[in-house]
This record gives sequence, structure tokens and C-alpha cells, in this order.
Amino acid sequence: MSYFQEIDKIKYEGSGSRNALAFKHYNAEEMFNGKSMKDWLKFSVAYWHTFTMDGSDPFGMGTMQRPWDQYSGMDLAKARVEANFEFIDKLGFDYFAFHDVDIAPEGNNLKEYGANLDEIVGRIQPLMKAQNVSVLWNTSNMFHHPRFMFGAATSNKADVFAHAAAKVKKQLEIAKELGSENYVFWGGREGYDSLLYTDTKLELDNLARFYHMAVDYAKEIGYEGQFLIEPKPKEPTKHQYDFDTATTYAFLQNYNLQDQFKVNIEANHATLAGHTFEHELRYAREHGILGSVDANQGDMLLGWDTDEFPTDIYNATLAMYEILKNGGLGKGGLNFDAKLRRPSFEPIDLVHGHIVGMDTFAIGFRVASRMIEDRVFENIIDKRYESYQSGIGEAILNNKTSFRELEAYAMENTIKHESGRQEMIKGIMNQYILEAGAFAKV
Amino acid sequence: MSYFQEIDKIKYEGSGSRNALAFKHYNAEEMFNGKSMKDWLKFSVAYWHTFTMDGSDPFGMGTMQRPWDQYSGMDLAKARVEANFEFIDKLGFDYFAFHDVDIAPEGNNLKEYGANLDEIVGRIQPLMKAQNVSVLWNTSNMFHHPRFMFGAATSNKADVFAHAAAKVKKQLEIAKELGSENYVFWGGREGYDSLLYTDTKLELDNLARFYHMAVDYAKEIGYEGQFLIEPKPKEPTKHQYDFDTATTYAFLQNYNLQDQFKVNIEANHATLAGHTFEHELRYAREHGILGSVDANQGDMLLGWDTDEFPTDIYNATLAMYEILKNGGLGKGGLNFDAKLRRPSFEPIDLVHGHIVGMDTFAIGFRVASRMIEDRVFENIIDKRYESYQSGIGEAILNNKTSFRELEAYAMENTIKHESGRQEMIKGIMNQYILEAGAFAKV
Amino acid sequence: MSYFQEIDKIKYEGSGSRNALAFKHYNAEEMFNGKSMKDWLKFSVAYWHTFTMDGSDPFGMGTMQRPWDQYSGMDLAKARVEANFEFIDKLGFDYFAFHDVDIAPEGNNLKEYGANLDEIVGRIQPLMKAQNVSVLWNTSNMFHHPRFMFGAATSNKADVFAHAAAKVKKQLEIAKELGSENYVFWGGREGYDSLLYTDTKLELDNLARFYHMAVDYAKEIGYEGQFLIEPKPKEPTKHQYDFDTATTYAFLQNYNLQDQFKVNIEANHATLAGHTFEHELRYAREHGILGSVDANQGDMLLGWDTDEFPTDIYNATLAMYEILKNGGLGKGGLNFDAKLRRPSFEPIDLVHGHIVGMDTFAIGFRVASRMIEDRVFENIIDKRYESYQSGIGEAILNNKTSFRELEAYAMENTIKHESGRQEMIKGIMNQYILEAGAFAKV
Amino acid sequence: MSYFQEIDKIKYEGSGSRNALAFKHYNAEEMFNGKSMKDWLKFSVAYWHTFTMDGSDPFGMGTMQRPWDQYSGMDLAKARVEANFEFIDKLGFDYFAFHDVDIAPEGNNLKEYGANLDEIVGRIQPLMKAQNVSVLWNTSNMFHHPRFMFGAATSNKADVFAHAAAKVKKQLEIAKELGSENYVFWGGREGYDSLLYTDTKLELDNLARFYHMAVDYAKEIGYEGQFLIEPKPKEPTKHQYDFDTATTYAFLQNYNLQDQFKVNIEANHATLAGHTFEHELRYAREHGILGSVDANQGDMLLGWDTDEFPTDIYNATLAMYEILKNGGLGKGGLNFDAKLRRPSFEPIDLVHGHIVGMDTFAIGFRVASRMIEDRVFENIIDKRYESYQSGIGEAILNNKTSFRELEAYAMENTIKHESGRQEMIKGIMNQYILEAGAFAKV
Repeated sequence: MSYFQEIDKIKYEGSGSRNALAFKHYNAEEMFNGKSMKDWLKFSVAYWHTFTMDGSDPFGMGTMQRPWDQYSGMDLAKARVEANFEFIDKLGFDYFAFHDVDIAPEGNNLKEYGANLDEIVGRIQPLMKAQNVSVLWNTSNMFHHPRFMFGAATSNKADVFAHAAAKVKKQLEIAKELGSENYVFWGGREGYDSLLYTDTKLELDNLARFYHMAVDYAKEIGYEGQFLIEPKPKEPTKHQYDFDTATTYAFLQNYNLQDQFKVNIEANHATLAGHTFEHELRYAREHGILGSVDANQGDMLLGWDTDEFPTDIYNATLAMYEILKNGGLGKGGLNFDAKLRRPSFEPIDLVHGHIVGMDTFAIGFRVASRMIEDRVFENIIDKRYESYQSGIGEAILNNKTSFRELEAYAMENTIKHESGRQEMIKGIMNQYILEAGAFAKV
Repeated sequence: MSYFQEIDKIKYEGSGSRNALAFKHYNAEEMFNGKSMKDWLKFSVAYWHTFTMDGSDPFGMGTMQRPWDQYSGMDLAKARVEANFEFIDKLGFDYFAFHDVDIAPEGNNLKEYGANLDEIVGRIQPLMKAQNVSVLWNTSNMFHHPRFMFGAATSNKADVFAHAAAKVKKQLEIAKELGSENYVFWGGREGYDSLLYTDTKLELDNLARFYHMAVDYAKEIGYEGQFLIEPKPKEPTKHQYDFDTATTYAFLQNYNLQDQFKVNIEANHATLAGHTFEHELRYAREHGILGSVDANQGDMLLGWDTDEFPTDIYNATLAMYEILKNGGLGKGGLNFDAKLRRPSFEPIDLVHGHIVGMDTFAIGFRVASRMIEDRVFENIIDKRYESYQSGIGEAILNNKTSFRELEAYAMENTIKHESGRQEMIKGIMNQYILEAGAFAKV
Repeated sequence: MSYFQEIDKIKYEGSGSRNALAFKHYNAEEMFNGKSMKDWLKFSVAYWHTFTMDGSDPFGMGTMQRPWDQYSGMDLAKARVEANFEFIDKLGFDYFAFHDVDIAPEGNNLKEYGANLDEIVGRIQPLMKAQNVSVLWNTSNMFHHPRFMFGAATSNKADVFAHAAAKVKKQLEIAKELGSENYVFWGGREGYDSLLYTDTKLELDNLARFYHMAVDYAKEIGYEGQFLIEPKPKEPTKHQYDFDTATTYAFLQNYNLQDQFKVNIEANHATLAGHTFEHELRYAREHGILGSVDANQGDMLLGWDTDEFPTDIYNATLAMYEILKNGGLGKGGLNFDAKLRRPSFEPIDLVHGHIVGMDTFAIGFRVASRMIEDRVFENIIDKRYESYQSGIGEAILNNKTSFRELEAYAMENTIKHESGRQEMIKGIMNQYILEAGAFAKV
Repeated sequence: MSYFQEIDKIKYEGSGSRNALAFKHYNAEEMFNGKSMKDWLKFSVAYWHTFTMDGSDPFGMGTMQRPWDQYSGMDLAKARVEANFEFIDKLGFDYFAFHDVDIAPEGNNLKEYGANLDEIVGRIQPLMKAQNVSVLWNTSNMFHHPRFMFGAATSNKADVFAHAAAKVKKQLEIAKELGSENYVFWGGREGYDSLLYTDTKLELDNLARFYHMAVDYAKEIGYEGQFLIEPKPKEPTKHQYDFDTATTYAFLQNYNLQDQFKVNIEANHATLAGHTFEHELRYAREHGILGSVDANQGDMLLGWDTDEFPTDIYNATLAMYEILKNGGLGKGGLNFDAKLRRPSFEPIDLVHGHIVGMDTFAIGFRVASRMIEDRVFENIIDKRYESYQSGIGEAILNNKTSFRELEAYAMENTIKHESGRQEMIKGIMNQYILEAGAFAKV
């Protein structure tokens, strides 16, 4: 059955096109430094927001009209598989990402859970081959069910820890089976609602134990994907243990997990933590743990995760700058962890949402590439830090000096600054952005 | 003496220019609907940030290098006048705005205060004529001096109220003398630090009394400028009475001042109050109180007024959309209440800051004009609300129905919605923005 | 059937009690200035959070275990009625509050909706009489159903406006029937998600039209309860029209509704709007529109409505101070619009939540009463503002002076301030709070 | 000369006292578990806020009236020394803390800087001995002077790095000379204003190099105090490298500094970073890096560091709980990094501010001690986590299980939760707080 039959394959028509159902900037096969745009960007469909999410919010029921919702149970699960692969085909994706409960009903116990998953995975695998599509990452949802009300690996109940282990074990087996490039942990309820009754030490220790066991089991079964942790400061939990990238890095080092894990950075989680998206990417890149990206955007005036489709060209440009400086994302990709606004309830809005998201990141990619090619920021930085290229600066960088020597030097020297020129630099960036239209001519 | 001699008059060179000291989008004389760009935009220099501000912040002393700072006292005041008119000439401004204490030292008492102002005003007036420059607005600083620690018109001390009255009286006389198009009240300390010791009722009543007296005095001396209140939610005061535009409108109505006052909306104040810039403009426009604009931008992750030069094209576009729908700003204008970042300490940064600000608003103006010309939002809205053009909808708008009738109607009808298409609309706006480069070709 | 049979009637045992299932401060019949504590406080049970809410959040399904959930449809509705009246009896409430959909299923159309409500109201009424319980307020839920995705009275569809009218009409009839002391409007979706497609002028005008029709219909049927608007800045909507009390007051004045409406102030909504709870109460009180209170508390580090049971003694004290200065709440009361934390899933937690909430407000009541009796803040304020009791200050208050006269006065006078003593005053407040334990001895 | 002659030594009079100039809860010599209250609390005067701060803010000049301000230059510095020791004596402090520039003028160069400091230290040392007072910590101000506009150890200029080294070298020598218990680094400008021109990798590496050199130099001169880093997320810098405790811990581990440094946690910095005060203390305690505390409080509705004197009993109680669980603060203490509100400008307000701060922490100490004695939270936690004491839980804690085994276990087991009882627990905490009045009877 076709769910998007009225929609043709979305094509690239260049920046001048007025066709709402065409890409204006995302030109999948266009080559940049020997790699196609689609390989640089590695866009991925988020199964949950696209095929499962119903538009409900804390004050209202679902609004989304989805033709596959005529089914239920395993039939619904199967219909969603079809919808997923049709959608992927129409938009030209190479990747998708999912939680266990997105693709199959949890069932009444772990046995049913496994059986349901096996059946659906059996349907997914041939379609992946047929359409040459890969899994960017899979994960286990350990926050929806009431059993996880106090966390999963950080629950106060050992039985919950065990149940979570069983779920992740199964997902790792599926990751192995489907060749997922990454396996993600987002600890939505790994945190605390109240310090007054929480043994944070035991909980953090258990979280580390859980991760070590996951690494061990992956090794045992020969799964070679990359492990990722997705930081978020809060929501649903009052305070999540993986608050941001730096907090996560502190944890990884503390428990000797820094070589086994990288981070999956979500734009909206960054801003909820008080950082810009590019800050989180920069921190991860420079600490060697930039793994993958959840491409969305938040509303800076709202205090919760709005998970909007990315439309802000500034954010996309600065994000792509970090990603390009990282040499791309390796096994990672750009996953659209983005949902339609509640009143965008028609199926075609799914197409519009992804088109604007892909075009926005394509613009960001084009702008950032040009700026790097022209060494815009690089030249500024080289000049600003040149005092570290020789003399006392070089000695500092080479660890060949001391407070005593620096004092003697400082006694004799006068400091001279040059303006940082932020205002001018922002003007230059605006120029590069406005020229992006011209980059995407057919 | 020349303070910006190394800088030539800034010229428009079009979007392709790589000259940092040229406008790429702001083309002062370009005509739009019978009015030049400069008359649509009415840019104004903020005297304080440009000639007075030293770059200090709560944790550090001033950084700014200003050639006129070799002087002090009245000599400094005179040097700043020269700097102002030279700067205005180089950048091509028609307006500037100032507080009393920006242009002359306060002196030791009200007599010296008046004398100092008179002397400086005597120097400003001929230069205004010579360069054909106007005052967008003037105001009295009633927050800097310790006497205003508990407010000015809302002080707990009648003597402070009286002192504030004397200051505003003098400023209204200057407004009359210089032909200021507007007179602004920003009540930085008109609010409370603690409810525990504040008689908010008496204070608000007094604020209204003060405004009524100002209106009376303006009438008495024949000053015909427009009165403006500039809302801000907080900072320096914990809670400012003029929290936002709606709060100000409640106040104006409550004290029967709504016909005498409009608002001066500052972008950064809007976001500190939890609103977008365009929200505040929209609210003011639709309530008939959109007076003037302080053009700057804040940092959405910082909780204080950063007063940055506007560089964000999205904000400028949506602001210009509201201003154009308002038929322009009338007596108001776009005043750059914006300061250089502390490390942008060289005089030429003043030029860069204003160029990027003016270009950003020129881009916004070009984009918004095109969108209005193409009726982008108007067509969407006409379609979305068409049910109010006839039948029960028309009856509602004409106040010709009742709950009883509406119930009967509703019993028989089925509601049918169409998607709001936010994602698609944002994509369209991105297209218009990226085409702005092409609008500004020479 | 009994749902709380293991729980005895909760009794007052005084501050020394260690019995978790007793009041330590709330002593219903204790007299203060000729009125019992329960008549000063007028506590109300919120039907939705107590009997309907299931503990779900945007990331997880319900957790609450409720014995009445064994039923469904109208049976469930009837079971909840029993639970409500049993709970009210056990805790000693005189009031409860509800939305239409809390007490009865909406049905498939307006006819079923009305029939369901009538049946349940028929069960509620005799129980109210039997237990001598009143409805503090009722309201219509116009945010949950997808039909309200673009608002109710502010929808872009006239049919939705009509449907909303039918719902409110029915609720007003019930209000009349049950003698509700107030009727509340909370416009959860009366606002905008995006300015880009919203005709805010038409929507606000329609909102006013809707309110005028409600007033007319109440008059028609002889309903004499008080109309209330409950402000909230955002959530679920990006920007709600009734942002805060001041915005609501601007609206009421603008549409000549200020004599027909007061506000229902919720603590958590106040803080989401950037105000303290006491600020909103003060503003409403001094503008004559303090109607009723939703007693809860938010988490100052979370950006959404957490609706926690009130436990903070500072907030409760300052709230009660405003309420006492208002001479009580008149027709209004203190409604516990508060929900249990998701992991507090046992029925007895409902009892604990309400006990701590009632005790917290009882403490606040005792402390604020004592402070008013001792004229703690009043003496401070009298002294601080005494310059307005005579001379130039008196002339200002009596509108008998002018800028000209004030200038002359200011020329001759020197301003003298005294410290505000905030730190000392806060210390005094701490003393009063710590003495509250001693106030509640049995 | 005496600056506080009208004030007698502040004495403990118990909770019933109405004397504003007495302690009601802080009883310095009262013994708890073999240690006096003053040794548990180790209160410290912050030299800058108490003797240097003038009450200016970004919108207004200083308001504070300080008798020693009749002097200037070195005479002022000497007068402040006298004021400090007199104040310490009157309030009964054992500690004070200072930046270099608080105690002596910086002079025109490093030579003058050193000479000025030496002269003042020469006056401080005998007074310390005479009054038996210690330095809790000293530090170097590396954010006020324009040379630090781009940071100190993280400046883009090697010359600034060298200058900073010279300053810290001198401060370490003073720390050695005066026996400071700690040396603190607060990196107010160690961060970035814009990522667009910042080499964050080089800057962070240099920060670590700087700290290593400081450790080396301390060892060289035999200084044995504890090194502390004080996290803050932002302000004045847009983004500070030491964002919070977790970020600092990530840094320390990454550069192998975790054994040489602990953190100095400030309450207001915690909340600006999106955490509670107690969260930061808990994290530091459980990671073994809780060094010292800056005792103040912020305003949760304001987005900047308000540095208020601590008056909130909840915060003080939860902070003291963490400190007591840590076995006290070791070399650290409770430093009042708190400033008077701008309108609290009289010298006696300094006394009121410190009294309320000390009493608030004394209350917190008394409440937390009782709660620990009664094992209130400990019993709750023991019960909640008991499943980890045996069986599969014990195997998890002992690292003796695996996903495979846990899956087998989970297949056979059913999860059973108990309510978290947050509402009840908060009620219990309120009871303990209200009993604090009775704890402090004389």
C-alpha cells in the first residue's frame, strides 16, 4: 500500500524554484572535495517523530492524521515499516533511526517484546537491502513505561536495572543484525526528581556499570557500531545525569569509558542546557567525542524541548562549520529528531518539514564550506594568536617556562591588544549567507 | 578637530562588495513606494553608546579608546559634540538621540545642570542646521545618580519627585528648542527592588501624575513632539513598572494617558520580557501605540541587556514587516541603542557596528517589502480566516449573534481544519531572505 | 464504594505532631478576627489533578494507581464523583472545582456532551447538599480536543468559535444550577504558535466578543457568579494572549470588560511569566481585580508548569499577606491546582499532597496575620513615604502642583535618603516564620 | 580610628530576641559533636563586597557611604585594613578572604603592584596574629583591568598570560606568608565572548598549563594551601570555561589536575548554571572535590549574579546537609560573597547583612544536624535502595553479572515500585525547619 502516493520523488531544482515540493539547496549528488553532498550530510529520518508521534502535548490529545493509523498492534507496526521505506524513497534518505518501541509493540513481557521485534526486523532487513538504506542508530526506549519512573540503569530497584539490561541486550543484537552504525543512550529518566530521596552516588556508579556491560556484550556478539550518549539537562526528569557534553565527558573519564563512547548532540538539548548548538559541537569535537547529531531547533523563549524542524540558517551554518572541521561525522549523521508543530497535522507536512530541514542544512553546508575554503575564521584566528608562534608564547605552548620566568618577562613588557571586531565579523558572515542563494543555481 | 579623519564617507556598493567600510544593502536614496530608503528607516545614532560609553561592565573597567577622552568636563562635552556630527556625516545619519547627561555634565546642582546644557545645546543647534540633522528624541537620565536609588517619579521621597520634575522640565524645553520629534521616558528605576517595603499603589499613581504634568508642561510651552514610554521588564531594578508593551498599555488606559503616549520598543527588552521583538511591535501596532524603535539585539542565552548591534536578518525582517504594516514609524525612527562588545575597543569599531546594523535593517526592509508586495503572509491569512467573511463568522464579527444562536449552529455543524503549514512557511521566508543579496545589486 | 477507607478523617494535631496523616497547622475552626481559618482560606480540591490526572508526561505514560480506574466511560465518571465526595469529607474541604470534561465524557457530539453532563450533575448536586460542599468554580476545557488546535474563541474557524460558545453556554447553565461561586476562563490555546499566519487583531477582538456574550448569557439566565480569567504566558501555546495579570488588565480595559472580570492567579503561571506569585497578587489587588487563586508552586529551574503542591513557606506567607490585605478573596478561594509528582503514584499520596499544601498555606496565614497585626511592613512603609504626608509631597498626591512649581522647590532643596534595610527586613521575616511552630500548639 | 564605634560586639541572644543587632541562631561556642558551631561553619568576610564595593551597577554610580572613603590610594588601602579587622572583631569572624586589588592599589606596573601589596600585607599580618584571625583564601583579580579583556591564562596574547603568571606568583607568595588555607581561581574572563574568533582548544590547554605552573610554584615555595576553582557559567563572559562543577571536573581529569584542585561553590553561580546550590555541593562531595563555599543567594527571576546575603532557610539547610555529610569543609569555609542591595547604603547595613547571613546558615546547620541525627533522609534512602543489598542487586554492585544473566533474571521477575513520597517528605522538612526556633533558646 502507498501512503504518499500523491507525492513524487522530491527533486533538486535550485534556489530559484518556487516549487514547495522541491529541494532548493540540497543537491544529493553534487560533489564537494571528492564526496557527494549526501555523504557529507548523512541525513536520517527519525522513525518516532515521523511515523509514531501523534501530536499530543501535555494539554491536548493527538492531532496528526496518518493513513497508517487505521491499523493497530502488529498491523500498525507493519504499516509503519511500509510508510518508512516509502517516505525514505520519496525524500531520498540513506538512513533512519529508531527506538525499539517505535517499530514494534512492547508486548506484555520480555518474550513478547523480543518476538514482536524479531518479526518487524525480519520485514525491515530486506527493505533496507532493496532500497540500499542503513540504520544510523537504534536505541531502547527506557523512559516511557511506568517501570522506568525512577530511571532505568539508575533506578532504585535492581529489578528495573535487570529489565533495562534485557532491553538493551536485545537492541544490541538487532544493531548487529541490521548493521546499525551507532547505538545511542538517551537517559531521559536517568537523573533525579528530588535529591531528598536519591542516592546519586549509587545511581551514577550503576550507570557506569550498565555501560561497561553494554560494551562487553557488544564485544561478545561482535557488534562494531559506535556507542553514543545523548546529553540533555532536564525534561522529563528535573535533573538529568548527562546534563551536557562536558558533564558527560566528566562521567566518561571518571568511569574510564572515554574510549568507548562519543556523544550524540541535539541542538535543542544544547540550548536547554544554556549553551549554543555550536558550543556543544565545538566542545565535543575538540575533546574527540563528536559522534552524531540530532538536527532540530528549539524556541529560545520556551523552556522545554520543542524539537522543531531546523530552519535557522545561522545555526545550520555554525553547526556545519564544526562538523566540517571535524572532517565530517564518521559513523554519525544528521538525524532529524524533529516533530511537526501540532497544527501541521496533514501527511504532506511531513514532507514539507523534512524539505525545509534538509535545505537549511544544505545551505549551512554550502556557506560553511565556502567560509572554510576562504579561511575566513582561520585567518582571523591565526592573526589573533600569533604571539604563541614564537618567543615566550612558543615557550608556553611547549611547556618550557615557569611562573618565575614569566614574571621576569612580564616585568619588561607592555601588553598591546587589537580589537576583536565581532561586529565586522558578523557582517561578513551575513554576506556569505546571502550569497548562498547564488551557490545553488541549476 | 577630526576624530574619524582616516575614514571616508561610507558609500553604498551593493551586495557584492568586499569593502568592509561600505554599505552592501543600505542605499539611502533608493526609492520605495515614493519614499527613499533613508526616510523609511530613519536611522538614529545613540549618543550614549557611541560617544559616552566606555566599555566597563560589572566586573571590569572601561576598555574603549576614544580620542575625545583626552578632554574632561565641559571640554569633553564639546569634543563629543564635534565627534557626533562628524560621525553622523561620515555614516550619513539624519537623526541622533540623547539623554541630558550624555551631552553635558550634570554639575553640582540644578542651576549648573541647566547652564551646562544650555551651553552645549547652543553648540548643537547650529550644527544640526548646517548638516540638516534632527533629534529623534531626547530624554532625561533618572537612574544613574544615587538620588534615584529608589526611583524618580516613583521614589519614596517627594524631594526626588520634585528633582525629577525639574530635570524633565528642562529636557522638554530643550526638546522644544531643538525640535525633537519625540520625548522618551525609560523608567530604569521606576519599579521595585523589594515588595516588602514598597507602596506600589502610591508609586504607580505618582508615575501617572508625573506623566500628566509632563503633558501639561509640553502644552504650556508649545512642544508638539510625541511622548514615548520605553518598556523593560527588569534591570537594573528587580521589577520595572513598564514591564512590557501590554503592561504599559494597561497603565496608560488606567490613568487615561493612552492618547498622549506611545511606546518606544527595544528588541533586547522584548526578549528579556519573554516576548519576541516582533510580538512587541505587533501588539503596539494593533493597539495604535507603536511610536519608535530601539534597534539592537540581545543574546538569548544571557539574562541581561546586552544591547548588541543588530545582525540577525530574521529579526530585522520581521520587525520591518510590522513597521511597514504600520505605514512606517511616523515621528519615530530606528535608533541604534546598541553598544560595541567590550573587546571592540577601537574607534573604527563604531563604524563597523553601525554599518552592520544599518545593512541588517536594510536587508530586513528589502525582504519585508518584497513579501508584502507578494502578499505572502496576507494571502495565507486571508485564506485561513475566510470563514469570518460570511455566514456565522460574519455574524460574529458584526456582533450579531449570541451563545444561544451559536449553540444551535454548532449542533448542526462539523468542524474541518487545514494544516497551519508553519514548516513550509518558514522555508518560504528563507527563500526570500536568500534572494536579498540579489535585491541589492548596483 | 469507598476509595479511601483505610484513611480516617484528617485531624488537626498541632505543630508538635509526628503523625504524617494529621494537620499540624491547619486548624479549620480556629477563629481569626471573627472568621474561622477555613473561611479565610476557602480551600478547594481540583477535580482534574486529583481524580482524572494519570501521571503521564510528554515522555511517559501514566503511573497513577487509582482504584476508580477499574471503570470506564460513564461508570468511571460516576466513580470519580464518589471518590471526590469521599476525599472532600476525609480532608475537610468545603469546595471543589472542575472542567466539564473532568466530570463527564465529552461524547461524540454536543448532544451527548450535554446529556452526559446532566446525568453527572444530577449525582453531584445531592452530594453537595448532603455534605454542605460548594463549587468554587467550574469551567470548560477548550484546549484538549484537536478542534481547538488553533484556539477556541480565537480560532481561525468560525465553527470552532461556535462550538466553544455552545460549551461555555452549557457550563454557565451548570454553574447556575450548582451555584458555582465563580466561572473561570483559562485560554490555554487562546494565543499563537506562530505570528507568521496569525491575525492577532481579529483573534483578540473575537476573544472580547466571546466574553461579552458570556456575560450577556449569564445575565439572561440569572447566573450571578464572578467571571475570572486565568493568565498564563505560554504552554501549550507559544504565546498566550492572557500573558499575565497586567496584560489581562490591558485587555479588559481595552474591551470595556474591566467591571465584569477579575483574575484567577496561579503561582506557577506567575513565575513562568517572570513575576513572583506575590507580584501578581499585589498587582491584581491594587487594580481591584483579585478574584481567586490557584495554589501550587513551580520549579524555578524548569521552564514549564510543574504544578507542584505548595510547600514553600515564604511564598505562602507573602501570598497570604496580599490576600489578607485584600480583606480575603470574596467569592474566590484557594484551589489546589497541583498534581502529585509522577512517582507519587499511590492513592495515599493524594492525601499527603493536600495535607502539606493546606498546612503550608495555614502557616502562611498564621505568619502573615501576625505580621499585619504587628504592622511590620506597614510601619516600614509609613516611615519611608512620610514625605508625601505634608508639604510638597502632599501637593503632589493632591494633584496641586506642576513642573514649574516642583522645579522651584527642587532648586532650593537637598535630597536625603535612608537605607531600605532589605537585609534586616528579611531577617525579621525569618523570625516570624520560625515562630509559626509556636503559633500552632494544641 | 574606629569605623563601627557605635556598634557593640554582636552577641547571641537566642531565637526569642527582638534585638536587630544580635544573633538569634548563631551561637559561636555552642558545641556539636565535639566541635564548636564556629568551627563547623568557618564564616569568612569577603573583603571586596564589604570594604571595596561601592554599590554601582551597569546603570548607576555608587551609593555606598563608607567612612573610610574619605581616603584615597594607599591611605584608603590602610583604612580598609583597619575597617576589616574592626568589623571582624565586632561580628566575631575567624576568617576573611581577598583579591590582590581589594587590599592594595595595582599601581602602574608589576613593581609598584608588588610594593603596594608588601606594605599592606605588612600591616595585615600583625593584626591577624593579634586577633587570631586567618585568611580563608586569597586570589588574584584577573578580570577587572582592560588587559584581561580576552582572558588571562586564556588570552590570545602570550604577554597577558605572562602578566597573569606574575600576578598569581605574587599571590602565592602572599598566601604562603599569611598562611592562607586556600588559593582560589575564578576565571571571570576565562571563556569566550564569541566562538567566531576563538581558538578554544589552545585556550583550554593554556589554562591547564597555567594551573600546572601554579602547582609547581606552590611546591617550590612550600605553600601547602588547597587550590580551588570557582565555577560560573557566564557573566561577564558570554560563556565561561568553568561552567559548573561537572565541567570543571571534566577539565581537571582531562589535564590530570584532579588531585591538585577542588572547587569553591557559589550558590548564585549554581543557579545561573541551571542547578540548585545543593546539586553542585552534592556533585562535588561525591566526586571528592568539595573544597569551599561562597555563601550567598541569587534571585531566581533575574539572569545575573545578584550576590545577595543568604536569607533562605531551605537553601541553607540543604547546603549544610551536604557539608555535614562531607564531614565539614576541611580547609574550606563559608565565605560571604554577598553584597548589600544598592539602596542599603549605610555602614550598619553591613552588620545587618552579615547577621542575617550567619543566622540563616546557623539555622540551616541546626536543622540539617537534627535531620541527620534522626536519619530522616538516610532511612528513606536505605529503604528505597534495599534491593541492592542482596541477590541480583548485590551482584550488580559487585560487578558480578552481565547482560546475559540479567536478561535471564528479568524474564522471570515482576517489577514492584513504591511511591517516592516527595510531598510527604517536604512536609517533614518543613516541620524540622519550624522547630529550629526552639533549638536556639538561651
